[in-house]
Amino acid sequence: MKAEIITIGDEILIGQIVDTNAAYIAQRLNAVGFVVNERSSVGDRAEQIVRSIEQSLERSDVVITTGGLGPTKDDITKTTLARMFGGGMRCDKRVEEHVRTMLAARNIEFNELNRSQALVPESCEVLFNAHGTAPGMWFEREGKVVISLPGVPFEMRHLMEDEVLPRLKSRFSLRQIVHRTMITAGIAESMLAARIAEWEDALPEYLHLAYLPSPNIVRLRLSAYEVDGESVEREIEEQFRMLEKLISENVVGYENATMQEQVHRLLVESGKTLAVAESCTGGSIAAKFTAMAGASAYLLCGVVAYANEAKRDILGVDASLIEKYGAVSEQVARAMAEGARRISGADFAVATTGIAGPTGGSAEKPVGTVWFAVASERGTEAMMRISDTDRGQIIDRATAYAIEFLRNHIKAQN
Amino acid sequence: MKAEIITIGDEILIGQIVDTNAAYIAQRLNAVGFVVNERSSVGDRAEQIVRSIEQSLERSDVVITTGGLGPTKDDITKTTLARMFGGGMRCDKRVEEHVRTMLAARNIEFNELNRSQALVPESCEVLFNAHGTAPGMWFEREGKVVISLPGVPFEMRHLMEDEVLPRLKSRFSLRQIVHRTMITAGIAESMLAARIAEWEDALPEYLHLAYLPSPNIVRLRLSAYEVDGESVEREIEEQFRMLEKLISENVVGYENATMQEQVHRLLVESGKTLAVAESCTGGSIAAKFTAMAGASAYLLCGVVAYANEAKRDILGVDASLIEKYGAVSEQVARAMAEGARRISGADFAVATTGIAGPTGGSAEKPVGTVWFAVASERGTEAMMRISDTDRGQIIDRATAYAIEFLRNHIKAQN
Repeated sequence: MKAEIITIGDEILIGQIVDTNAAYIAQRLNAVGFVVNERSSVGDRAEQIVRSIEQSLERSDVVITTGGLGPTKDDITKTTLARMFGGGMRCDKRVEEHVRTMLAARNIEFNELNRSQALVPESCEVLFNAHGTAPGMWFEREGKVVISLPGVPFEMRHLMEDEVLPRLKSRFSLRQIVHRTMITAGIAESMLAARIAEWEDALPEYLHLAYLPSPNIVRLRLSAYEVDGESVEREIEEQFRMLEKLISENVVGYENATMQEQVHRLLVESGKTLAVAESCTGGSIAAKFTAMAGASAYLLCGVVAYANEAKRDILGVDASLIEKYGAVSEQVARAMAEGARRISGADFAVATTGIAGPTGGSAEKPVGTVWFAVASERGTEAMMRISDTDRGQIIDRATAYAIEFLRNHIKAQN
Repeated sequence: MKAEIITIGDEILIGQIVDTNAAYIAQRLNAVGFVVNERSSVGDRAEQIVRSIEQSLERSDVVITTGGLGPTKDDITKTTLARMFGGGMRCDKRVEEHVRTMLAARNIEFNELNRSQALVPESCEVLFNAHGTAPGMWFEREGKVVISLPGVPFEMRHLMEDEVLPRLKSRFSLRQIVHRTMITAGIAESMLAARIAEWEDALPEYLHLAYLPSPNIVRLRLSAYEVDGESVEREIEEQFRMLEKLISENVVGYENATMQEQVHRLLVESGKTLAVAESCTGGSIAAKFTAMAGASAYLLCGVVAYANEAKRDILGVDASLIEKYGAVSEQVARAMAEGARRISGADFAVATTGIAGPTGGSAEKPVGTVWFAVASERGTEAMMRISDTDRGQIIDRATAYAIEFLRNHIKAQN
């Protein structure tokens, strides 16, 4: 079965927001067996919305739209769909009651605009939105389905899980879609492709290989669309096992498991603890770990030692080291990691110190220079990387490198 | 002039990545005067790419595609465009030299796949990619332009700035597009709309108002598309000044200025300094500040005091407070902020302590309970918020609330 996603809103077309809804919906549709044919984004204009839905319906069985369901004048998705599918509007008592209750809890008065949120097209089935004031809608025409969801990501996600996916699964007979991703590191995309060319050429026709390069990492995804039987997953596992033999030193893991998820698992399983000392990454490393449920099992503390005084007073970095070698130096990175480990009693500590720019660089230490250190009972390791990019990228890459460095250090001890 | 954006790649359609390229390109096109008509994403399939580009060309003057330019077999954008625009392929010597130099610097051997990256359609003008191995391409047909850029965000951005935008500006006669955004806080979208209804109805026809709600914040955007003369910006300023009188207590700023950008500016202008003490937000607050160039002027340190021992040993929180009131309490939040200020000597300190979940909640302190404190020479303030959502949202909202709380505290002293 084929599906398409249409996100509605001028804010998407002018680039005021990044469209995360489409990726989420695509992922979930794939998981239940829909091939997503195409995605598009249109403005808050009726003729565009209608044309885009009609085109998608020609190609696909299900169309999911998000956005344009707010109570204000710029939101026109509901009235547009009502006209498209015919019939009048009716007041949905359950929605009205829910909106009243939600607003009362927030001390907001119920007004005409809120009342309009309970008005729904007679042609749709209401998808109850427990987490917001705009209901979702389910329309059918000639065996095809159009679903309209609010654009607020949190509300959309709950509606997808609680209302949309269960209905789609019972409404359509779906075949499986399987995606598996292997993560490789330390080998360039072109070298990797050359090394695995024979393996790639011998893949069964129904398996599609994709290369997904990012700094220092190339992910290899094998996809099978709308296949039958359990043998597909086994076949993919077998193919990856053959591949592992070809590039064993470069395989770092499977699926979208991020580097921090790997560290998380290693630490949780071993019962070891972690401390983080960050200068140029400024809290990003700690935030990557604390974003994961259960991080409190191992993360003892993080120190964002931005000023030299913080490096000295909190982490106990010897001021003479900073003076002699500079704050961005192997010596200071090592002292930061060791200091974080000392003050927290953690088993492992990781530290960064670098020049994120745009200013502060020199000929000897250009913007993008970052020193990393990892300390544990086995001693302290340090490394340096230079990223020739902009501030955001330098911080992102340094965060990724630091977590990979930490992971390798932990793994070497297992 | 109208433009469309097509992002190419199965990884977008299966939701393996979030498409940030489209938002960036849309923003930059708007800035130089292109109305972005529609955005779409298609898979790595020739017939889809061709159909999608042809449809876009019917509606628009310029089509920008990203993705599908890598050296591996799954990337087919270049050969597809070559067939679409006719003619053969040629080797671009400058690109080949550049690829050789880039790979040599990274100790990667130059192979057949890399050589293929220097092959370009004879029908295109090459857009030199100084930051990667895949060149951009510029095609023309009947006065319309198709531009193909690599999908790697960093390379795409540099090509947009250095090659694409300058050419578009000289190739087309463009009129201005103006977007201005006012940020309001503390008033629900429906109440806001009711309060400003008269003002909204009296807006000149060429100004479009959009409501952009997010937790605790509603942004109001006025847009004017393809207008002439300098009076438009003045008219928008004037409209916003009238609006300010209607909702003066709710206006918190303009443009996409985030709360952290406002704090950044307040601190840089006043020469005051900041320390951050985070428990449940886990480094996110510090990371928001350090993401901005120049944060080192005021950010002295951050402490991610996840474990109780870290709160005690690094921030000097009295262990008896934690025992008596619990780690998630007004008393501990206050002590964390005061401790961060004390150990760093910062003028301001902000602290969070809460239960991000999914476990750790109780009847008295459910998951989502977060205490905030801000300390300065004027004393310490605290507040509590409960977010009834999931871990990611709880951390995001707590980060936003903390920065807003800090901003209000700083502003009250100005």
